[in-house]
Amino acid sequence: MTTLAARVLSGEVRAASRLMRHVEDGEPSAVAELQTLFPHTGRAYVIGVTGSPGAGKSTLTDRLLAGLRRQGRTLGVLCVDPTSPFTGGAILGDRIRMQDHATDDGVFIRSLATRGALGGLSRATGDCIRILDAMGRDVVVVETVGVGQDEIDVAQMAHTTLVVTVPGMGDDIQAIKAGILEVADVFVVNKADLDGADRTVRELRQMLELRHAVRGQAGDHDARHRRARAPSAPPDQRPPEPAGPREWEPPILKTVATRDQGVQEVLAAVEQHRRFLDETGQRSVRERARAKMQFVALLRERLLREALGRLERERGRLEEVAAAIVDHEADPYALAEALARQLAEE
Amino acid sequence: MTTLAARVLSGEVRAASRLMRHVEDGEPSAVAELQTLFPHTGRAYVIGVTGSPGAGKSTLTDRLLAGLRRQGRTLGVLCVDPTSPFTGGAILGDRIRMQDHATDDGVFIRSLATRGALGGLSRATGDCIRILDAMGRDVVVVETVGVGQDEIDVAQMAHTTLVVTVPGMGDDIQAIKAGILEVADVFVVNKADLDGADRTVRELRQMLELRHAVRGQAGDHDARHRRARAPSAPPDQRPPEPAGPREWEPPILKTVATRDQGVQEVLAAVEQHRRFLDETGQRSVRERARAKMQFVALLRERLLREALGRLERERGRLEEVAAAIVDHEADPYALAEALARQLAEE
Repeated sequence: MTTLAARVLSGEVRAASRLMRHVEDGEPSAVAELQTLFPHTGRAYVIGVTGSPGAGKSTLTDRLLAGLRRQGRTLGVLCVDPTSPFTGGAILGDRIRMQDHATDDGVFIRSLATRGALGGLSRATGDCIRILDAMGRDVVVVETVGVGQDEIDVAQMAHTTLVVTVPGMGDDIQAIKAGILEVADVFVVNKADLDGADRTVRELRQMLELRHAVRGQAGDHDARHRRARAPSAPPDQRPPEPAGPREWEPPILKTVATRDQGVQEVLAAVEQHRRFLDETGQRSVRERARAKMQFVALLRERLLREALGRLERERGRLEEVAAAIVDHEADPYALAEALARQLAEE
Repeated sequence: MTTLAARVLSGEVRAASRLMRHVEDGEPSAVAELQTLFPHTGRAYVIGVTGSPGAGKSTLTDRLLAGLRRQGRTLGVLCVDPTSPFTGGAILGDRIRMQDHATDDGVFIRSLATRGALGGLSRATGDCIRILDAMGRDVVVVETVGVGQDEIDVAQMAHTTLVVTVPGMGDDIQAIKAGILEVADVFVVNKADLDGADRTVRELRQMLELRHAVRGQAGDHDARHRRARAPSAPPDQRPPEPAGPREWEPPILKTVATRDQGVQEVLAAVEQHRRFLDETGQRSVRERARAKMQFVALLRERLLREALGRLERERGRLEEVAAAIVDHEADPYALAEALARQLAEE
């Protein structure tokens, strides 16, 4: 058994920290460690927290961690940050947040910021979830900072995904509607003491209704199968239309995270969703989706590394190839085809 | 010469529209068309507009388009939207924005929303920029909705990148600092009639100063070479420290896009940045970075398609492989290694 992996399995935080750094840096040695850990994964419950910047996600996450700790769960937390593409790391220093938990062995917090040239954020996140899972953490919380494509991918790695927004961000809701709406299991309107909180709740509800209508028209059977009603809906939930027995309607909950208001209700909704997933067999559907996402991210990066290595041996450094493309001396489409064809032939 | 490409080269909007749809859908037939167009690319000036959701980016883009049209430029506009991962498209209908330009042949607007299983948003954006370039558009404006990793990639495809924010989003600035700050050539504080606009300008300036300080400490020669001062700084710019002669200091400009205030100044800053890139030879640096980004995105998707095709022939559908991974019957790391090794062996 590889050394780091053995120490991770015994729950050693420093070993996990080191392995995560290797994973983030894309070090080839990490693969053997991850393979050793892999059979010991699949037990942790994964909660995703995403939504617009400025919505107070980190404060809310903080409160959720405190609540989960009171329930006696051990926690792993991943903060997934956008990366500086030039410096290859968060230039303004690591986040020093969630300090309340700094002395609590039951909470292990790690920022994922480095991205690298190959764009392996989703892959690194997937691997780090597995490390926290293998080291025996009951719950893994993954918080994303941005609201882009990668964040949606990351959100899909969770069993339960919270989408956090704040009052008065009308355009914001427009922006998140297309991608994030679809991955939300629980909506949280944070800073609900601000004006317009009820309006935001109303707008979210309308979007959910519209989604139903569109799906109904489109005859999207898959989507309708997936949609699901909570077994016992909290008052704030109010499903916009009668729904089938195996459908989950994402509740829309109001919080003031800075004052710890509404946080218990969020945790209750997460628990309710967890029960729903277990009772309906949807948990394994989620886990397959996650495994698929993780595998595609892993494969994509691994292939790209191999192909770029080959390209460098045959055509020079990527920068030189890019210069040749700008000068129209190299055809990027032909190059990509040639490298892909090499994969196809045996 | 392929049919669609020939029609695109003659400036035909319907052909460009159709080819873009093929590109977005990842249709293999699009590759030959793109290869035909490729020698005719490299003339358009690309402007990126990114920043937090809710910052009024679309209104600002609208005004910028009007200003560029008054200068007599022909325009191609790409609105890059997050995608619904389940429905494979924006479920709530296409954006019906920027209607002012709907009857103007000089403005060709296209939303990029579909993403597909292989995550080819960056690749599709790069290809669509080339199509607009080949059809002879003087300026291509790429507006992103989210603020995630893919959006940062897309922003790096521009010659000049505008980062738009609004007053009073302190957390927001924290969130965008790491990634977006580094790609900004011009900062725009929109909705500057709201309280706190000057404070936001101040905060942005402090972040730029901090960036200098960090870079200075780190002895990051590359970064210092890249950093550059505007040839003639507008009053709002006020570089935080004396900078070398070949450095560009991103100006921080205030706008009220809904009232068309400050928009001319933004266009002037874009023009100033364009001249700076030309005079310092940095334009080709940008274009190489873009070519690199586009090529990596292209290669990544192409390889993944090939590998997943192979996987399906040998091990069954991706969904089945994912199920086997969840059941620990398949090891994702070993599978990815095996597929990558096939690429390495001739």
